[in-house]
Amino acid sequence: MTYERTNIAAMQGYVPGKQPESSDTIKLNTNENPYPPCAAVMAALLQVSADSLRRYPPPSADGLRDAAAKLHGLTREQVIAVNGGDELLRLAVTTFVEPGAPIGMLEPSYSLYPVLAELHGSPVVRVEADQDFLPPADLAARMNAAGVRLLLLVNPHAPSGRLTPAARIADLARAFSGVLLVDEAYVDFVDPKLGHDVTALVSQFDNLLLLRTLSKGYGLAGLRVGYGLGAATLVSPMLWKSRDSYNVDAIAQRLATVALQHSAQASETWRLVRIERERVQQALCALGFQVGNSQTNFVLAYAPSGAQARRLQSELEQRGVLVRYFGGPRLDDALRITIGTPEQNDRLLANLRELLPAA
Amino acid sequence: MTYERTNIAAMQGYVPGKQPESSDTIKLNTNENPYPPCAAVMAALLQVSADSLRRYPPPSADGLRDAAAKLHGLTREQVIAVNGGDELLRLAVTTFVEPGAPIGMLEPSYSLYPVLAELHGSPVVRVEADQDFLPPADLAARMNAAGVRLLLLVNPHAPSGRLTPAARIADLARAFSGVLLVDEAYVDFVDPKLGHDVTALVSQFDNLLLLRTLSKGYGLAGLRVGYGLGAATLVSPMLWKSRDSYNVDAIAQRLATVALQHSAQASETWRLVRIERERVQQALCALGFQVGNSQTNFVLAYAPSGAQARRLQSELEQRGVLVRYFGGPRLDDALRITIGTPEQNDRLLANLRELLPAA
Repeated sequence: MTYERTNIAAMQGYVPGKQPESSDTIKLNTNENPYPPCAAVMAALLQVSADSLRRYPPPSADGLRDAAAKLHGLTREQVIAVNGGDELLRLAVTTFVEPGAPIGMLEPSYSLYPVLAELHGSPVVRVEADQDFLPPADLAARMNAAGVRLLLLVNPHAPSGRLTPAARIADLARAFSGVLLVDEAYVDFVDPKLGHDVTALVSQFDNLLLLRTLSKGYGLAGLRVGYGLGAATLVSPMLWKSRDSYNVDAIAQRLATVALQHSAQASETWRLVRIERERVQQALCALGFQVGNSQTNFVLAYAPSGAQARRLQSELEQRGVLVRYFGGPRLDDALRITIGTPEQNDRLLANLRELLPAA
Repeated sequence: MTYERTNIAAMQGYVPGKQPESSDTIKLNTNENPYPPCAAVMAALLQVSADSLRRYPPPSADGLRDAAAKLHGLTREQVIAVNGGDELLRLAVTTFVEPGAPIGMLEPSYSLYPVLAELHGSPVVRVEADQDFLPPADLAARMNAAGVRLLLLVNPHAPSGRLTPAARIADLARAFSGVLLVDEAYVDFVDPKLGHDVTALVSQFDNLLLLRTLSKGYGLAGLRVGYGLGAATLVSPMLWKSRDSYNVDAIAQRLATVALQHSAQASETWRLVRIERERVQQALCALGFQVGNSQTNFVLAYAPSGAQARRLQSELEQRGVLVRYFGGPRLDDALRITIGTPEQNDRLLANLRELLPAA
C-alpha cells in the first residue's frame, strides 16, 4: 500500500544532471565552477576542530550571515543562510504560498521550480518568456490577475543566460503584489562592466527576495551553501519558523564565511570564465551553432541545421564530455553547455568539430 | 505588509537549546555526546579534496546509504540520508500528510513535533503518555479513530529517557493504519544487555520508518547527518521526490560514512555515557531528585521538594552549567540533564549541592 500524498504519488521527482564518479569525464552539464575554492577555504577546512563537529552548529549561522551582509552592504537581519539555494526555494514556497495556491514562473526556466510547486500541491502559472528569454512587459499584471503570491524568476535567466536589467527587476517588484524571488544563482558571472546589482533593492521593496549560492561562483557546489537577501520582515519567518533548526552544518558555515570574506579570489575565477565564455561562444558560432549572449557560466547553443542537439549530447557523452539537453518547447534543438577550463572547452570544441557534418 | 501564510504568521518557531560560543560553559542542555568523533573521522576530514567541494555531491548519497545498510543488515533501498534527523521529520510530514490532515504524537514529547505540524497547517492529535512516559495500550486505536496518517514517536522517549520495547513497537506498527515514525535519536545509548533492536521490523512492516542520527551517538551534531530506515516503498518518495536534490553535502557524506564504518569506536563512548548515567542518576537521587530509568544520554530529574526546577536551571546557568527546562504538564518541576564527561557531571553535581537547601 502507498502512504504518499496524492499529489506526490502522481508526480515525477526532479532529475539533477549526471554526477559521474570518474574524474576523467569533462563535466560541462551542471554549471559548476571549473576552478576550485580559494586557498583560504581549504586552509579553514584543515582548522575544523573535533569539538565544532561534536556540538550543534550556531542555529542561525550568524557569522555567515554577517559575512554576506557585509559583502552586500546589508544587515544581518536581511540575510538567511541555507543548505544550498534549493533550500531557499523550498522555504519560500512553504512560507509564502498556501497549499493549492498558484506559483508563478517564466517558461522556460529552472526545471526544479514546477517540481517544488507539485510537491506543495500548487498549480503553476506559466508565462512565456519573450524572444530574448526575458520577462514580458505584462508579467506582473498577469501574475497578479492569476492570484499568484510567489513568482520565481531566475536572473540571469537559465537556461538562456540572458540578463534582465536591474531597473526591470525593480519595476517587477513594484508591480507584483506577491513575493518576487529572484534566483541569482549565476549573477557572479555577469560582466562587471554592466554594473548589474539589485541587492540594494531589498531595502526598498519588502516583497523582493534574492537567492545567492556559493555553488557556482565560489566553486563550492559540494558544500551546499547559499543565502537569501530580503527585507527583515520577509526573511524573518523563514529564519525563525520554517527553516530546519540547524540547516547549515558547522563546516559549511565556517568555510562559506571564509569564502565570502575572500570573494576577490573567487572573482578572479569569474573573470577567467567570462574570457572563456566569449571564446566558446565565438567558436560555437563558427561551427554553425546559434548562441545568444550569456551572462552566466554556461551558454545555450542551438545546433547547426542538419545536426540534432539530442544526438550531439548523446555522442558527446560517449566521448566523455557531458553537456545538458532539456528538450521541450524552444529547447528542442539546444544544448546547455557549462563553461569549463580552457583545456576542457578545447576538448568540447574538438569533439563537436568531429561530430558535425562538414559545412 | 506580511506575505506569510496565515498558519505561519500565527505560530511560534521552535526554540533550540542555547548554543553559547564560550567553551568554558558546561553544556548539558542539548544532548550532545560529550566525546568527539573518532580519529578516523577527523582523518577523513583532512583528506577532503578541493575537487570534491567544487563538484555537486552524489545526489542520493549512495556511499553513506550503503554504510548504513551494512550496519543494520538492510539494503540501500531501505535507507535515505538526511541533513540531520530534523529533515527526515519534515520529509515525513510533507510526504505522507495532506496539508490540514492531523498528525499524531505522544504528550509530552520532542517539542519540535507540534511545530512541524503547525508549519504544515495540520492539527495535532495528542495522546498522553502513560505514567512511565510510554505509549498507552490504546494509542493506535485512538490515532486511527482520529484519522491520523503519521504518528511521531520518539523511542527511547524524550524527555523521560524511557524505552518502549521492540515487541510493543511491532504491535503499534501492526495496529496503526498510517505511517509510524519512530525517532531513534537516542537509541545508541540503550543498554546492550536489553538487546533492543527494531531495525529488522522495517522489512516486516511497510508503514514503519525509523529515524537515526549521528548527532548524538557519533559525536557529530555539528555535521548534520541522519538517516531513515524503512521499506523501500516508504523511503522511495522521500528519496526521489520530496527531498532537496543535494540535501547532504560532500563532506558530511564522507565523514558520516567513515563514522558508521567505525561504529565500534563510537560505541565505546556509549559505554562511557552509560556508566556516567548510572552514577549521575544515583547522585541526583541522593540529592533528593526523583529520576526515572533512562536509556538515553540524558536524565529527567524532578526537583526535590522545596526546590524549583526553573530556578535551579537559571541558577545553574549563572554558574556556567546549562541544563534544559521545558515546563508544561508533567514537566513543570523537572530538569532534563545531558550526561557529560565525569568532570562535567562532577561540576553539575557540586553546583547542585550548593544550590539545594540542606536536607
